[in-house]
Amino acid sequence: MPPGNPAVDTADVAALLERGRALSTPVMRAAIDRLAPPMDTVAAYHFGWIDAAGNPTEADSGKAVRPALALISAEAAGAAPEVGVVGAVAVELVHNFSLLHDDLMDGDEQRRHRDTVWKVHGPAQAILVGDAMFALANELLLELGTVEAGRATRRLTIATRKLIDGQAQDISYEHRERVSVEECLEMEGNKTGALIACAVSIGAVLGGADDRTADKLEEYGYHLGLAFQAVDDLLGIWGDPESTGKQTWSDLRQRKKSLPVVAALAAGGPASERLAELLAADAKSSEFDSFSEEEFATRAALIEEAGGREWTSQEARRQHAVAVRALHEVELPEQVRDQLVALADFVVVRKR
Amino acid sequence: MPPGNPAVDTADVAALLERGRALSTPVMRAAIDRLAPPMDTVAAYHFGWIDAAGNPTEADSGKAVRPALALISAEAAGAAPEVGVVGAVAVELVHNFSLLHDDLMDGDEQRRHRDTVWKVHGPAQAILVGDAMFALANELLLELGTVEAGRATRRLTIATRKLIDGQAQDISYEHRERVSVEECLEMEGNKTGALIACAVSIGAVLGGADDRTADKLEEYGYHLGLAFQAVDDLLGIWGDPESTGKQTWSDLRQRKKSLPVVAALAAGGPASERLAELLAADAKSSEFDSFSEEEFATRAALIEEAGGREWTSQEARRQHAVAVRALHEVELPEQVRDQLVALADFVVVRKR
Repeated sequence: MPPGNPAVDTADVAALLERGRALSTPVMRAAIDRLAPPMDTVAAYHFGWIDAAGNPTEADSGKAVRPALALISAEAAGAAPEVGVVGAVAVELVHNFSLLHDDLMDGDEQRRHRDTVWKVHGPAQAILVGDAMFALANELLLELGTVEAGRATRRLTIATRKLIDGQAQDISYEHRERVSVEECLEMEGNKTGALIACAVSIGAVLGGADDRTADKLEEYGYHLGLAFQAVDDLLGIWGDPESTGKQTWSDLRQRKKSLPVVAALAAGGPASERLAELLAADAKSSEFDSFSEEEFATRAALIEEAGGREWTSQEARRQHAVAVRALHEVELPEQVRDQLVALADFVVVRKR
Repeated sequence: MPPGNPAVDTADVAALLERGRALSTPVMRAAIDRLAPPMDTVAAYHFGWIDAAGNPTEADSGKAVRPALALISAEAAGAAPEVGVVGAVAVELVHNFSLLHDDLMDGDEQRRHRDTVWKVHGPAQAILVGDAMFALANELLLELGTVEAGRATRRLTIATRKLIDGQAQDISYEHRERVSVEECLEMEGNKTGALIACAVSIGAVLGGADDRTADKLEEYGYHLGLAFQAVDDLLGIWGDPESTGKQTWSDLRQRKKSLPVVAALAAGGPASERLAELLAADAKSSEFDSFSEEEFATRAALIEEAGGREWTSQEARRQHAVAVRALHEVELPEQVRDQLVALADFVVVRKR
């Protein structure tokens, strides 16, 4: 539990996540129904509504933190949570557009315990359906036809560009031997922080909030996103495969320059130096793809010994604190502030 | 020359195309400069501003019909052509986003006499830079911050969705033995008509035109797009490789179900039946990729004998006529109408 913060009321957070899902899912399904075949089917597979054979399923469709945030965001402007629904769906569409394209670019074969879209339906459908989701996000917002919708779409577009910048940085870092902690944080801020920030402002903007309020909500969301990603980076190495739906040592297998790795390499000292040697050799090794569990475990142990795990864990708490501080620099209904704090606490203590 | 229309003043059309290029290129270059490295370089390569090694070039960057149309579009609403510039750039960005993604999906290795982006910079960059261009198009429009910009962005988003629908249809048709003429026209309307329609309305919308005027301008643009595509389909089979920058029999090599093919197959009679037999056999042939010039020439001759070439040529003139008729159903400055007619004539007589 983050120090200095009230105990996380998990029931409360679960209710907020459930409300986000309940209000946004019907609108999302209706939006996906607009896609021409076979794109509607491919999207339904991606969301876990059907399996590869086309039969209805109820696969895990993700934590749905963003929709929950978008609805609270509307309440932050004094509007009903329903006012944030189109914003919630638009943000989720952009998030899933990026998952479809990133999985293809990164060659990732699994997501949420299932084969990825490009693996099942081919690369062309992954590109096409991603494009369609991105367009659909803007279409849904702009057909509201209000000035607020224009402002919301602009914020979403800027967040999307940052998302793309982040993916570009991620790809280029994979080919580099050294990445600084600052570069890694910038990349993660683009890749994760920007869209979560947009989720936290979009409902408020649709509800008529001014730019200053929206910017402060984005500040909270950006740092919440960085805390979220720091925890994700920890789970990407030390997470339980049963909970995360990823392989053991997932990020190490993908040679990801995630925060624990980058922090360990920057720390100096014997473990850090040994790790640097190993990773440099790995980059040239033709046997990397057949490495055993033990070989990854050795690398993970060195990261931990060099302090990368502890630093990342502290970083999650630092970002959590910055996020919560932003909430106190803007006028908000007390209940909204409590809910946003509870969600921030949840992000830092989650196991998947 | 289309019958019943005034002689095309090619000098006039050249001046309109040149004005479109001159006003939009600096804004496009400034927009591309916003992309984070290496995406700015990849985009500059795609536009022909630099070669694969990064040296400045002046490669053929396309006919630039869309920017020319967007500026005339602003004048259609009584505004200065400059009012249409951001619209022109946004439409060009969406057009190029679709080229980057389509070339990758279709496996096309050449465009405008040069290697395509995925071939030079890899699939990931083609996906990423395409995504960035799409986002940038919306960003440029929405940062104008006006109600008109919101309306323009909405129209562009709807056109983009049609573009994506058209590409989905195109991909699915390649795997089918028979495609009807109607299906082919629908696909080409989505893939080419919708964005040209948007180019013709976007300047007017930014200049304050009402929806009825914008819709009529789109009607002209949609049918202009279909005329454009019919000519493209003719050039795709019988075009001079020197002019088009494509291989001989380019569309036949790609098994494209383009208008001449589809019309020939629908015509019936001995040549049509022989063509159907050959194409059915080609679909299963393992030697298709090593076919000689003669084998493609045989297929082209059968398409012509079955009437596919003549039908498509007539279709271009029919769509041209429908486009021009729409211009007479809306109030426009006389000079604007003349210029739009001249551009329509140009599209039907062009050789590349």
